[in-house]
Amino acid sequence: MSTIIAVDIGGTQIRVATFSPDSIIPIQVKKIPTKAVKSDPYTRVVGAIESLWPENGKVSCISAAIPGPVDPHTGVIASTPNIEGWKDFPLAEKLQTHFNVPVYLGNDANLAALGEWNFGAGQNHMDLVYLTISTGIGGGIIVDNHPLEGAHGLGGELGHITVLPNGPLCGCGQRGHLEAVASGPAIVRHVKEQLARGIASSLQTGEDLTARDISTAARNGDPLAISALARAGEFIGMALADFLVIFNPTIVIFGGGVSFSGEYLFEPMQKVLKKKVMDQAYLKGLTITTAQLGDDAGLLGSLALAKSKIKHDN
Amino acid sequence: MSTIIAVDIGGTQIRVATFSPDSIIPIQVKKIPTKAVKSDPYTRVVGAIESLWPENGKVSCISAAIPGPVDPHTGVIASTPNIEGWKDFPLAEKLQTHFNVPVYLGNDANLAALGEWNFGAGQNHMDLVYLTISTGIGGGIIVDNHPLEGAHGLGGELGHITVLPNGPLCGCGQRGHLEAVASGPAIVRHVKEQLARGIASSLQTGEDLTARDISTAARNGDPLAISALARAGEFIGMALADFLVIFNPTIVIFGGGVSFSGEYLFEPMQKVLKKKVMDQAYLKGLTITTAQLGDDAGLLGSLALAKSKIKHDN
Repeated sequence: MSTIIAVDIGGTQIRVATFSPDSIIPIQVKKIPTKAVKSDPYTRVVGAIESLWPENGKVSCISAAIPGPVDPHTGVIASTPNIEGWKDFPLAEKLQTHFNVPVYLGNDANLAALGEWNFGAGQNHMDLVYLTISTGIGGGIIVDNHPLEGAHGLGGELGHITVLPNGPLCGCGQRGHLEAVASGPAIVRHVKEQLARGIASSLQTGEDLTARDISTAARNGDPLAISALARAGEFIGMALADFLVIFNPTIVIFGGGVSFSGEYLFEPMQKVLKKKVMDQAYLKGLTITTAQLGDDAGLLGSLALAKSKIKHDN
Repeated sequence: MSTIIAVDIGGTQIRVATFSPDSIIPIQVKKIPTKAVKSDPYTRVVGAIESLWPENGKVSCISAAIPGPVDPHTGVIASTPNIEGWKDFPLAEKLQTHFNVPVYLGNDANLAALGEWNFGAGQNHMDLVYLTISTGIGGGIIVDNHPLEGAHGLGGELGHITVLPNGPLCGCGQRGHLEAVASGPAIVRHVKEQLARGIASSLQTGEDLTARDISTAARNGDPLAISALARAGEFIGMALADFLVIFNPTIVIFGGGVSFSGEYLFEPMQKVLKKKVMDQAYLKGLTITTAQLGDDAGLLGSLALAKSKIKHDN
C-alpha cells in the first residue's frame, strides 16, 4: 500500500498527516509550530515529513497547502505574508529532490474549497464558491467540477475585489476591497472608529479587542457590535451578488472565524444579497452554508489535491 | 460526411450556416431578419435551417447562440430581452423534436468567448476572459481550458458586477453595474447629462446620439467626448482589476462596438488597471487585445460548441 503525505502549512502551525489511499482518517498526524528559534520553517517541514515516513517506504506523493499564492504548475511559492524568507520559494522542487516523490502545492483557501467539495459541505455540487473570512478573506471556486486556479495559481482571490471604491486601506495596499471592510480586523477597526467618535458600547478600544469579542458583545445585545457585524455582512452580501452572476454556483460555503458571528453577520448578508442580486433566478436552489471541515480543511484539501493528481496520472 | 448546422440568433438578425466537421469556412450561409410581420422568430429559425439542410440528409447536430440566458443542460431559454415570447422557451427540445438531431444552445457572449478561444484571438490560452461591450456588456470565461457556464447557464455575466454602489440604474433593474456606467448607452447618457449641465461640446443632445458619434467627436478632439470615453474606460479598468484576481487569465479579449473608441477608452482603462490591480504579478505575461472574429463570433462560437459536443460524445 502506498501512503499519501498531506501537509498544511499555517502561519503559526505546520501539520503533517499520512493517509492510505482509500480513507480520509489519517494514519498518523504531527503538529509543530511554524516558527522556532533553532530551525527555519523549511527544515521543520522536512523533519516532520521524515518523522512520519512509512516503514515500507512506499509514498505515492506529498501535497501541501500554502498560506499564500503558489504557482500550481511550477510549485513555486510567490510569497507568504506570515512566513519570512519564502518569497519565490521553490518548495515543490526542493521537497521533490529531497524525498524523490511527486510534490503538489496549492493555496490554502483553494485547497480548503477542494476539501469541502470532496469531503465536506460541498459534496455532489459541480459549481461551488467557498469564502473564508478571518484575518484575511480568501476564496476557492469549483467551475463545472473543475477547480479554478488561474494561469499562475493566483485566481480565486475573492477578498480582493472592490466593494467600496476609495474605501479603507486593504492589507494588499489597495483600497475598498472586501477584505478591507469585512474581515475580522476590518470589523475591529470599524468598532474602534465608532468608539473614538463617542458611540456608546459595552466594548472598549484597545490593542486586544478582537472580532470574537465583538461577536460576544452582539449576542449580549450591544448595539455597536450588532451594527458593526451587520455592516460587514452587508458588504459580503454585495460581493456575493457579484460572485453569483459570475459563477452561478449551487452552493456558497463560508469558512473561517466569521462563523462565530452567526446570524448577526449572515442575516444582513442574505437580506442585501436578495435585494442586490441581478435576478432572483440566481437564488433558486442555492445553498448558503458554513464549512464542515473546520481546522482539518487544509489537511483534507491537500489530501483531495493528492488524490486528484494520482487519479489524473493513472 | 456529416454536416454541422450553426445558428446565431440576434435581436435583429438570424444567421444560419452549414459546416463540414473539418473546416471553419461555411458551406452555405443564410441571413434573415429576426422579426417579421408574417411569422414568429421560431418559425423563421426552423425555415432557415430547413433551407440549408444538406442533400444527403446527414446532420451531426444543430447548435445555436442565444441573445439571453439559457440553461445549457436543459436547452431552455430563460428570457431574451430583444425577442418577445421567448420566456422559459424550450428551444432545444422543440428543434430536436422537429429535426431529430441533437441540439445545443449557449448564451451569445459565452459562445463568442468560445469562438475566440477556438478560432480567434484566444487560441492556445488556457485561462481567458472575454468582455463584449456594446448595447449591453456581456462576458465569457475559460478556466483551465474549461468554459464557465454556471449551474444553470447563468454564469459569466461580467456586465452585472457592481462598480459604483448606488450608481446609475442598469438595464437589469439594479444600480451601479459595469453595464450601467460603461456600455454604449451608458456613455451616451453621461454625455447627455453633461450637455444638460451646460458643458461645451461639439455634440448635441437628441434621440439619435450614439456611442459611435461620441467616438468620432473624441477623434476630432472634443473634450466632453474624450472625458466620457475615459470615464467608461476607467470603470472597465476597475472591473478588470476584479476579474484578474478572480480568474488570473493570460488573455483578456474585448469584443463589441466599443472597439471603435480605441485608445480613448483603452488607455484610461489600462492606466486604472495598472494602478488598481492587487499585485503587478497579475499583469505579467497578460495579453489585452480585441476580438478577431467580429460579426462571425456567434456563428463560430456555435460551431465551437458543436465540435466540443461531438468530441465529448465520441
